[in-house]
Amino acid sequence: MAFQEIIARKRDGYQLSRHEIEELVSGYTDGSIPDYQVSAILMAICLKGMDVEETYYLTDAMLKSGETLDLSGLGGAKIDKHSTGGVGDKVSLALAPIAASCGLVVPMISGRGLGHTGGTLDKLESIPGYRTDLSVSDFRSVLSKCGASIIGQTSDVAPADKKLYALRDVTATVESIPLITASILSKKLASGIDGIVFDIKCGSGAFMKTFDDAASLAKSLVDTAKRFDKKCRALITGMDEPLGNAVGNSLEVMESIDYLRGNFISDLHEITVSLGAQMLIIGEVELSEDKARQMIEDSISSGKALDVFKRMVELQHGDQRIIDDNSLLDLAETKDEFLSPSDGYISEIETRDVGLAANALGAGRQRIEDSVDFGVGFNFRKKTGDKVSKDEPIAEIFARNITDIAMAKDKLQRAVEISPEKPPTDGKVLRLIE
Amino acid sequence: MAFQEIIARKRDGYQLSRHEIEELVSGYTDGSIPDYQVSAILMAICLKGMDVEETYYLTDAMLKSGETLDLSGLGGAKIDKHSTGGVGDKVSLALAPIAASCGLVVPMISGRGLGHTGGTLDKLESIPGYRTDLSVSDFRSVLSKCGASIIGQTSDVAPADKKLYALRDVTATVESIPLITASILSKKLASGIDGIVFDIKCGSGAFMKTFDDAASLAKSLVDTAKRFDKKCRALITGMDEPLGNAVGNSLEVMESIDYLRGNFISDLHEITVSLGAQMLIIGEVELSEDKARQMIEDSISSGKALDVFKRMVELQHGDQRIIDDNSLLDLAETKDEFLSPSDGYISEIETRDVGLAANALGAGRQRIEDSVDFGVGFNFRKKTGDKVSKDEPIAEIFARNITDIAMAKDKLQRAVEISPEKPPTDGKVLRLIE
Repeated sequence: MAFQEIIARKRDGYQLSRHEIEELVSGYTDGSIPDYQVSAILMAICLKGMDVEETYYLTDAMLKSGETLDLSGLGGAKIDKHSTGGVGDKVSLALAPIAASCGLVVPMISGRGLGHTGGTLDKLESIPGYRTDLSVSDFRSVLSKCGASIIGQTSDVAPADKKLYALRDVTATVESIPLITASILSKKLASGIDGIVFDIKCGSGAFMKTFDDAASLAKSLVDTAKRFDKKCRALITGMDEPLGNAVGNSLEVMESIDYLRGNFISDLHEITVSLGAQMLIIGEVELSEDKARQMIEDSISSGKALDVFKRMVELQHGDQRIIDDNSLLDLAETKDEFLSPSDGYISEIETRDVGLAANALGAGRQRIEDSVDFGVGFNFRKKTGDKVSKDEPIAEIFARNITDIAMAKDKLQRAVEISPEKPPTDGKVLRLIE
Repeated sequence: MAFQEIIARKRDGYQLSRHEIEELVSGYTDGSIPDYQVSAILMAICLKGMDVEETYYLTDAMLKSGETLDLSGLGGAKIDKHSTGGVGDKVSLALAPIAASCGLVVPMISGRGLGHTGGTLDKLESIPGYRTDLSVSDFRSVLSKCGASIIGQTSDVAPADKKLYALRDVTATVESIPLITASILSKKLASGIDGIVFDIKCGSGAFMKTFDDAASLAKSLVDTAKRFDKKCRALITGMDEPLGNAVGNSLEVMESIDYLRGNFISDLHEITVSLGAQMLIIGEVELSEDKARQMIEDSISSGKALDVFKRMVELQHGDQRIIDDNSLLDLAETKDEFLSPSDGYISEIETRDVGLAANALGAGRQRIEDSVDFGVGFNFRKKTGDKVSKDEPIAEIFARNITDIAMAKDKLQRAVEISPEKPPTDGKVLRLIE
């Protein structure tokens, strides 16, 4: 069958067969199907959708386009956590050591920041010496020694996804639940995990703006992962303000270490404990959610989780002295404060704009080839619902020069809304999908 | 604005602006927008549509991508006819001379056959010497001398359409009313006409299988042409059996000459007169439909239309002796008859299959670069609704060898259905859209 007939079938809303989907993925990867035919079928998928069966076939074909890791020699359930990304989302940095200290193996393959969102790899690389490009055998070695390792994707994993994503990015075909599902899962399943917990963000700082879109993606990820016989759950969590206080690479590492020392910021703690409990449940370390949550609290208060973090940093060639000495992390020396323009309550923070403001300071990337400035960013002192007086500091700004400080103040001014009435504040964990 | 944002707007169902549509057409034509982005937006247009305003902008941008002819020096209203194509559709061959003999100027730029449909240019080229590649000044000269000229599209006309059509063909984005409308109209309006009558075919031998699809295309063509201040009407006509008796290039020329001599085959005559009357009405030669129809009958019975045909053939370097001597046309000498397999009535002719059978003999093309055999084809002796006895000839087959004869018989056997009951037969002209 000529490939345009397969395109026509999806255009007309039919379910594609496993064979047709495999032809798409292998043909695009080996270059026998040209990009203009692939972009046409991607748009048809965007507009006509794919069911769970098709999404499973697509994920499987993309997964099989590259190498998969075999971590079967490691003892313990191998459980990962993946977030769809947000502003100030440093959860992985603390959660991987926490889960490992509770008995799981956490082989985490993370990404870099792009657009308004930060990336776990960039945050970790702000630790002097920390290497995210470990070989598979080194990755396995770190996991066997401390139970957690966070590295970047190797080029051998799901090459079809890399090629497809680059095409989707320039053809307005990123926003598709089945395509997002296959892209995420094909990479995640390549790391040889037994199960995964997803943190699906929704709100002004998230890729999914609405609860309904987030719920659709969560359901698609969970249903598709189960077709691979993987344990999978998803939490839908709010991303209507930066998570925690810090936005920026070094600042977020500092906040994570502080958190592992037991200095809890309520939203960060709520999400970390909730995700961690689900990891312990699907990894069958502890089936009671209450007890799982308590294990996590204990792993922090006992210092065990911080010990695993320290060991992971050391094993990945990072300078572990940063754990006791923040000053070893790069931090921009031009500082100023963003002050409240009036009395009232913080009623809204346009979170995507805060991410873009940090990005403009140099904390993130506009294009994948841009470099990142670890030392810049924001430390919020007030969050949504907090009472503020005129000229009271809302956030501290770390930048490279006063021009950037002024630019950041201007952007924060537009992003933060003050109201006379105290706004309702809800918990951050909105729904569990299993 | 990055082009992917324009793609996203159409993906999300928004109306594109004139500027955005111009950017699509000019960017693709000059190579600054890559084919993979264009195929994505073409698929989005297929699935989300375009309104009349957008279709007008698209047509106009494609029209302006190339040269337009200025025929303003010629006296008389310049009225064209365009058919969406079918099997045995030789209407243009007789209708252009008929309309010219009634006082119109008919500057007809026609196409070649592809797939199951034949093409007017191929039919005319079966006349020895006939040239379809006239220069603009020669085209104008033929028109000034005899009122009608039928030539092929020059490469300077609507180059954007040529490039877009090639991409649509391989990306399953041909089937879109606004894209079809812009493709047809951008070429037709480039020939400097005052008005046009469309013959929108529907049925098993047509591009549009259903009446509703044909009506949508007819309405889109008429509405869009009016935005250019052109007079435009469309007839929806049935293409549920081959039009007339002949299918094949030389055979259709013979049938057309025979028709201009007054030997009427009812369906061919019905459609020719109906289209011709609409041409005379919009060209304001005759506003009463009854009188317009009578003018056409008179132009045939008086021999004036045949004289124009003869003169056109001569002016386009064709051997006009073919008009009185059929044997000067190439005709395959291996002949046989397809006989009725049973007693009964012809209840259905799968017209597309008949077209493909003629194509398999060599009468048409599978790919645009294929050559055409003028001498092969079918002459039907019976049509839908006719009574047949077992072994009575239904069609005569002209082929190059007995293997092809056997293949054609087999295909006709599958295409023609015989029933014991006489099927209802309707007129071929189904609706006027104006």
